[in-house]
Amino acid sequence: MHKTAREISQLLGGELAGNGEVVVSRLRGIQDAAPGDITFVARAQYAAAARATRASVILVGRDWAESLPQTLIRVSDPSAAFQRLAEAVAPPPVKFAPGVHPAAVVAADAKLGRDVSIQPYAVIESGAVIGDRTVIGAHGYVGHDARIGADCLLWPRVVVRDHCIIGNRVILHPGVVIGADGFGYTQGPKGHEKVPQLGIVEIEDDVEIGANTTVDRARFDRTLIKQGAKIDNLVQIAHNVVIGRHAIICAQVGVSGSSTVGDGAVLAGQVGIADHVRIGDGAIILAQSGIPRDVPAKEKMFGYPARPHAEALRIEAAKARLPELAARLKRLEARLDAKPDA
Amino acid sequence: MHKTAREISQLLGGELAGNGEVVVSRLRGIQDAAPGDITFVARAQYAAAARATRASVILVGRDWAESLPQTLIRVSDPSAAFQRLAEAVAPPPVKFAPGVHPAAVVAADAKLGRDVSIQPYAVIESGAVIGDRTVIGAHGYVGHDARIGADCLLWPRVVVRDHCIIGNRVILHPGVVIGADGFGYTQGPKGHEKVPQLGIVEIEDDVEIGANTTVDRARFDRTLIKQGAKIDNLVQIAHNVVIGRHAIICAQVGVSGSSTVGDGAVLAGQVGIADHVRIGDGAIILAQSGIPRDVPAKEKMFGYPARPHAEALRIEAAKARLPELAARLKRLEARLDAKPDA
Amino acid sequence: MHKTAREISQLLGGELAGNGEVVVSRLRGIQDAAPGDITFVARAQYAAAARATRASVILVGRDWAESLPQTLIRVSDPSAAFQRLAEAVAPPPVKFAPGVHPAAVVAADAKLGRDVSIQPYAVIESGAVIGDRTVIGAHGYVGHDARIGADCLLWPRVVVRDHCIIGNRVILHPGVVIGADGFGYTQGPKGHEKVPQLGIVEIEDDVEIGANTTVDRARFDRTLIKQGAKIDNLVQIAHNVVIGRHAIICAQVGVSGSSTVGDGAVLAGQVGIADHVRIGDGAIILAQSGIPRDVPAKEKMFGYPARPHAEALRIEAAKARLPELAARLKRLEARLDAKPDA
Repeated sequence: MHKTAREISQLLGGELAGNGEVVVSRLRGIQDAAPGDITFVARAQYAAAARATRASVILVGRDWAESLPQTLIRVSDPSAAFQRLAEAVAPPPVKFAPGVHPAAVVAADAKLGRDVSIQPYAVIESGAVIGDRTVIGAHGYVGHDARIGADCLLWPRVVVRDHCIIGNRVILHPGVVIGADGFGYTQGPKGHEKVPQLGIVEIEDDVEIGANTTVDRARFDRTLIKQGAKIDNLVQIAHNVVIGRHAIICAQVGVSGSSTVGDGAVLAGQVGIADHVRIGDGAIILAQSGIPRDVPAKEKMFGYPARPHAEALRIEAAKARLPELAARLKRLEARLDAKPDA
Repeated sequence: MHKTAREISQLLGGELAGNGEVVVSRLRGIQDAAPGDITFVARAQYAAAARATRASVILVGRDWAESLPQTLIRVSDPSAAFQRLAEAVAPPPVKFAPGVHPAAVVAADAKLGRDVSIQPYAVIESGAVIGDRTVIGAHGYVGHDARIGADCLLWPRVVVRDHCIIGNRVILHPGVVIGADGFGYTQGPKGHEKVPQLGIVEIEDDVEIGANTTVDRARFDRTLIKQGAKIDNLVQIAHNVVIGRHAIICAQVGVSGSSTVGDGAVLAGQVGIADHVRIGDGAIILAQSGIPRDVPAKEKMFGYPARPHAEALRIEAAKARLPELAARLKRLEARLDAKPDA
Repeated sequence: MHKTAREISQLLGGELAGNGEVVVSRLRGIQDAAPGDITFVARAQYAAAARATRASVILVGRDWAESLPQTLIRVSDPSAAFQRLAEAVAPPPVKFAPGVHPAAVVAADAKLGRDVSIQPYAVIESGAVIGDRTVIGAHGYVGHDARIGADCLLWPRVVVRDHCIIGNRVILHPGVVIGADGFGYTQGPKGHEKVPQLGIVEIEDDVEIGANTTVDRARFDRTLIKQGAKIDNLVQIAHNVVIGRHAIICAQVGVSGSSTVGDGAVLAGQVGIADHVRIGDGAIILAQSGIPRDVPAKEKMFGYPARPHAEALRIEAAKARLPELAARLKRLEARLDAKPDA
């Protein structure tokens, strides 16, 4: 990028204050910005950060009153405007052209929709079905009889094992594994005996799943990721789990076998959910919490083991005072011991 | 599937109660079942769930007394019978035919046993040895001089680095990495200096390792996974670790360098084990626990940092009462202050 | 290996005590060693382990006084000498010869430096640049316009997505994903709407990143891993994070969006860092800790939520006494109730 503040102001429909001829070449967050950068202030509360930034140009709200040495551009929504600017100057997103790359192995009886893109070294097994305009990235693997819908984007190196079903507009990031065996054993005479994992994974429309996340197939029936759920990197979804519509599952969460996460629920990073647990619709589980039992709808939980958030905060506050409480208890005992009639 | 309750009852050697002509097409868990589904009740305690289910047919135990509007099939072990039914109606498991796919790179001096299957885009490096009937899945990588036993199944996209040794009947799920360098540095004049990781990983017979799990090679000597151990997805096994025979390691567990997990020990999900720690045979570590030091054989541990389970439960119960204890302490102090002779 | 104690002593410039003709064939840790093995004792404190070991030969310090039935070899630094021995007897490290394997897809306009090695089934997209002597392992993927420096080693199956920038002497272990989309959504009328992730990942010189670790690209601008940082397996680095120079990030750590880890900071295993948090230079975060807010430079933190280490230890000690404190409080109340004038 090489643009003047004036050009950017015009691009964003903003109102310029200060030197319009200053040239910026990078977009940066307010704390990391340097001369030659443009940044933004989402809200008036961040005025101190705006005063301290080394950026040359700052996007601010329409109601921004303070004048600053930098060039300001007033816009209605600085965060959205910054995003718009970023999109305007970013290289166009990578497109994978339709067609089957000659270095790909596609089974003779696989069914490919219109304008499908099969990238180098992808393997499409017998009976697989791939919908219109879907991209199977380099080194992708689509197992026997798996079905993938239309307008999906499988980045390089995604595994979808046999018989799994994936909806439309699903995005799978590199390293995702869909449909590996669930972790199930019975005790046999010579050790653990594997319980065949006969079910599948079914992923509904508009789901996005992050890099190196694993979703295991069901013992029978299906593991189900419902419409619009968003799952971050390195998450473990065990066999027979159900993830609700529009749920948000942050990085490194683990959901154990047969548990259910409700519609619109949010699991923050590194949360662990025990098996056969039901997380209600709209529940929020704060980071690293451990959930051993059912959580009601809309409840906010925190801790290990987790408790309702307000209760957890009270306990946490008291815990911080524990050494002091112990000392006070000791003093009380001494006072009582010292009293002649005690 | 499209079967009548009568057909299923005959298939399972069961005893039919109710309408034998009802047709079912899906196997489902008792809570998620809908009309047209068959489900099962493992134990009489789940009678309430059986009454509430919308399934058309329920497998119950021989001793099931209550009559229900659904069709019942009495069998000796409903869970096992359900599994048998699932196996009878599931598509046959995917088989990978023996032979080397033309799109695979196999070093001239690699040794392949009888009926080995090398799938598309696999790479077998120089000096590697692969036992009879073993399958190397698509995009698999077997490093220089690595040795893999007989009857193994490496699902697509498994990496086994150089010199590692894998036994017989080992199952490695997609994305597994065996033998990457351990995480070891010394402090040098210009920063961290890499300590060469000269050892290997050795995996004994009948081990199963879940998707995207990583097992690092030893600094020297070997990282060892003993016979029959089962490891779930996204687990980290560091350099020089020893995992005992028939141990169970659940998803997202991390075992730090040079630690030992005893035979038959169980590490539940997201457990963390510090380095140079010994977990005794048959010990059970509950989910998300953090283990900073040795654990005796058969001990059950819980918490962060972990304590023996019974003690952890007592502390946990007292912790829940902390705000109340603090209030009572304050009242006591006030009472004592109010006494003229205190 | 098949060497006498005398040969090893000469190799290491050591001083032999005991039978020099004993032959050893394996290097083992002191606890796991068996007859025929050589081991070492790092410090005199481990004398008990030296007495108990079944190894045939032990490397000890120059000042080692005690005589033992095993053959001893006195050296200045037993751990370093053992490492030297390991390097002398280990198979030479695997080398990947320069050249482009015929089974690789390299875009016509990609720029390859001198003596680059492109291994089988690698894919190098249009506009990518790869520096001198760098190895792209089997099944590697280098996206459009990505730039990788000189003398890098990308083990098999690494993904570097489009436009990302990687310095010199960087090591990426199998399964690493660099530059997948950050996890960002806004609330739209029909559910979560994806926020385009327009930035990149930039990795400076001498960084090493462990197996199956993921580093997400920035929303705009860049996610930055600074010079000399070392990152272990299965770590999640979210969008817009900055990891400081020579920082150490252990396995399964998660760093949330826009957080900063200072130079030389250490995050132990399974630590979680919330978003928009600053970890000061040289701070140490102990294993499994959860960090919800900024940490000053050089601070040592522990716990969930984390507190300064000394404070956390005091609270932890008091917590262990909680059931006892509760009982003592109850006794005090009873004593006070029993007093006539209370």
